[in-house]
Amino acid sequence: MSEIRTLALGCKDAAQAMFALDSESKCRLLHDMAAALDAQRDAILAANARDLQQATAKGIQGAMLDRLRLDEARITGIAEAVREIAALPDPVGLVTRRDTRPNGLEIERVRIPLGVIAMIYEARPNVTADAAALCLMAGNAVILRGGSEALHSNLAIASALRAALEKHDIPAAAVTLVEDLRRETMIELLQLSDIVDLAIPRGGEGLIRFVAEHARVPVIKHYKGVCHLYVDASADEALALNLLVDGKTSRPGVCNALETLLVHRDIAASFLPKVAQALQERGVELRGCDRSRARVEGLRPATDEDYAAEFLDLILAIRVVDDLGMAIGHIQRFGSDHTEVIATRNDESARRFVQAIRSAVVMVNASSRFSDGGELGLGAEIGISTTRLHAYGPMGAEALTVERFVVRGEGQVRHSQSRL
Amino acid sequence: MSEIRTLALGCKDAAQAMFALDSESKCRLLHDMAAALDAQRDAILAANARDLQQATAKGIQGAMLDRLRLDEARITGIAEAVREIAALPDPVGLVTRRDTRPNGLEIERVRIPLGVIAMIYEARPNVTADAAALCLMAGNAVILRGGSEALHSNLAIASALRAALEKHDIPAAAVTLVEDLRRETMIELLQLSDIVDLAIPRGGEGLIRFVAEHARVPVIKHYKGVCHLYVDASADEALALNLLVDGKTSRPGVCNALETLLVHRDIAASFLPKVAQALQERGVELRGCDRSRARVEGLRPATDEDYAAEFLDLILAIRVVDDLGMAIGHIQRFGSDHTEVIATRNDESARRFVQAIRSAVVMVNASSRFSDGGELGLGAEIGISTTRLHAYGPMGAEALTVERFVVRGEGQVRHSQSRL
Repeated sequence: MSEIRTLALGCKDAAQAMFALDSESKCRLLHDMAAALDAQRDAILAANARDLQQATAKGIQGAMLDRLRLDEARITGIAEAVREIAALPDPVGLVTRRDTRPNGLEIERVRIPLGVIAMIYEARPNVTADAAALCLMAGNAVILRGGSEALHSNLAIASALRAALEKHDIPAAAVTLVEDLRRETMIELLQLSDIVDLAIPRGGEGLIRFVAEHARVPVIKHYKGVCHLYVDASADEALALNLLVDGKTSRPGVCNALETLLVHRDIAASFLPKVAQALQERGVELRGCDRSRARVEGLRPATDEDYAAEFLDLILAIRVVDDLGMAIGHIQRFGSDHTEVIATRNDESARRFVQAIRSAVVMVNASSRFSDGGELGLGAEIGISTTRLHAYGPMGAEALTVERFVVRGEGQVRHSQSRL
Repeated sequence: MSEIRTLALGCKDAAQAMFALDSESKCRLLHDMAAALDAQRDAILAANARDLQQATAKGIQGAMLDRLRLDEARITGIAEAVREIAALPDPVGLVTRRDTRPNGLEIERVRIPLGVIAMIYEARPNVTADAAALCLMAGNAVILRGGSEALHSNLAIASALRAALEKHDIPAAAVTLVEDLRRETMIELLQLSDIVDLAIPRGGEGLIRFVAEHARVPVIKHYKGVCHLYVDASADEALALNLLVDGKTSRPGVCNALETLLVHRDIAASFLPKVAQALQERGVELRGCDRSRARVEGLRPATDEDYAAEFLDLILAIRVVDDLGMAIGHIQRFGSDHTEVIATRNDESARRFVQAIRSAVVMVNASSRFSDGGELGLGAEIGISTTRLHAYGPMGAEALTVERFVVRGEGQVRHSQSRL
C-alpha cells in the first residue's frame, strides 16, 4: 500500500473516534490545542525561521514572505482563533427535523460529521491550525497538505495539535500533515475516494483548478469573486457611493471586493461624476463603457475581459445599463456566483434582483465586503463555495457536517406478510 | 462548439427561467405535463413498441424487457406520479434561518434551485418523467441521458413534457433529452463543469463507477446497499425476526434489503434456530460464521466476500458477535454507509449504536425496508446518496436545492473610513 493511502487510512480510523466525541470533549480538546500552541511557541518560531531562511534563499520576498512569517503576536493570534472556534455552537447532533409517520415511525434528521476532510492550501501556516480546529470541532478528522514553503512551520504547528489529541486519547492521525509534497502524491490523495469525504482547496486559481481537475473525491471550491454593485435609478446616491468606496477600496485584494459597477442610465449623469471624484482621489483606475465615458472624462474603455476580470486591485469596470433587466443580464454573463449588491430604494427592484440573481450571496443596500463567514454570523470560515451544492457562499462549521436519518420504531415492517 | 455543449448551454438558459418561477406556476406546469403525458399516450405507446421490438431483436428478455415495457396503466401511473410531485411542498424560497447582526444587517438563508441537473440512467422510461418532474418542481432544468434501449420511449415522453413547457413560455430546453448516446458524448457532458451543477447516475454499479470516474462535475451516487441487522442480547426475538423476514424477503432485489445478520452471542442459541426456520421455509440460503454454524445445521461457511456482498437475492450472511462493539466493528469494516438496524430493548445499546454507526440511515427496531424517500416522508425520491456530502440517504426535492445568503441593509459598510 502506498504511503499516502496508509496515512489516509489512519486518518479515517481517527475520524471514527472523532465521530463519537461529544461537544464538551471537543471543546476541551480545542482548548488544549490552543494551550499546546502557546506552549510550543519557541519550537514553532524556530521552525518558521528555517522556512523563512529557505524562502529568502529562493528569492521569495514582499507580501508572500510576510504571509509565511510568524512572530509571538501571530502565534498568540493563532491560538486565540482556536479558542474562538472552541466557543462556537456544535453543529453535530443537531436535530434539524422531527416527524412521526402514520405508521408510528419517528424520523429525525440529525447532523453528523463528514468524516475525513483534505485541506489543500498554500503558504499561510495559520491555515494549519485554523482548518484543523474547525474540522475537529465539527467532529471530523483532517488531512493537511500545505505548501512546501511552510513545511517546517506546519510540522511544528501540527505537532502541537497532535500532542493535545494524544492527551485526550484520540489517535494523533485525526490531524495528519502530509510531508511528501510531490504533485503525484497530492493527485493520489485526491483520488482516495473510499477514504476522503471532501477536499477543500484554498489558494490561487492555479491550485484550485489543479485540484478540480485531478480529484475523484468531492471538492468544494471557488475560483474567483467578480462581485457587482448595481445602482438602481431609485438608489440613494450617498448610500450607493459608500457601498462602492467600501467594496472597492477597503481591501481590494480579497474575493468579496467589488470589481464592476453597473449604473442605471437615469441616474448616471448625476452619479458617475461623484464616483469618479470619490474613487479617483483614492487611486482607483476606472474603465468604462461608451455611455460612462461620456459622463466622466479620461475613462479608459472597458473590454469584455475587464468585465470578466477579478482585478484584486484598485481598478473598477463601469457600465451604464438601460434597466434592471440589463444589469441582471450583465451579471448572468460575467458574474462568478460569489456576491452581488443592489443599491435601491425601490422594494420591487430589490425583489426582482434577489429573485433573478443566482449568486451565493445577494445584498440589498449593504457592502459586498460583508460576504464573509464571520460577518454573516457563521463564527469562522473554512472557505467559500461557489459550487452550488452542499454549501453555497461562506462555509462555517455546519458546512463540515451533513444531515442523516435516525429512525425509531417498535418493530414496524414494510410488508405485513413479514409478520410471523 | 460541440453539439452536447450547445444543448447544455440551452438547458442552462432555461435554468435561469426556471429559477424565477413561483410555486404556483411550477404546480400548474407539472399538471399540464401530466395532462400532456395522458394526451400523448398513443404516441408514447407506439414509440415504446419500437423500443420493445428492437430490444427483442437484440435478445433482451425477462425482467429487463419488462422494465422497458409501457402500457396504458403504466402511462397513467407515470402521469399520476407527476401530479403527486406537483403536490409536494416547494423547497425553493424556504427561509431556513434568519438573523439580525449587531450592525443591523438582516441575514436570511434561503433555498434556491441547484441549476442544471444531469440525470444518467438506464432502461426504465418512467425515470424520464419522474426525474424531470422532480427537478423542475425544485426549480431546476434537467439534462436526461437515458439508455439506448428506451430511446424512442424517452423521446416521446420528453416531447410531451416539452409541449407543456412551451405552453408556459418556458424554453423547452428545461427538459433536454440527449439523443447522441455515444460514451464519449456522455463523458463530455460529465465534464461541462461550467454548465452542469450536479450529475445523478441511477443504475447498475458499472454505470455509476463510469460516471464517478469521468465526471468533473459534482456527482451524487450510491454504489450498493450492504444493510445490516444487529440483534442485541436484549432484543425482543419476535420483533427482531419480523424485521429480519421483512428486510430479507419482502423485496430482496432492492438496495435497502438486508444482507447480513449480526447476532449477540448471548441470544444466538435461542434466536438462530428461529432464523433458520423462518428464512429457510422462505427459500433463503444462509451462510454463517463458525459460531452460527454450531447453532444451525447445514449452514454454508460465510467468507469475507459474503460479508461484503450485496446479494440482491435470497441469501443472508450471518455472524455471531461477542458484543455491540464487535457488531459496530463489523459494520465499519463491511458496511456501505446505506442503512443499518439494531433490534434491542436496551436504550443504552440503541444510543451507542446510533452514536457509532455513520451510515445515512440508522434504524432502531424498524425494518431497513423503510429506508426510502417515500417512507421517510420526503414525498418522492430522486436517488439515494451514500456520498457524505450535500445529501446523505434518500434524496427528495429539497436535495435538489441549496441554501444561499440574502442580506438586507441600510447602507452598512465594513470599514467606517469608507463613509464619505
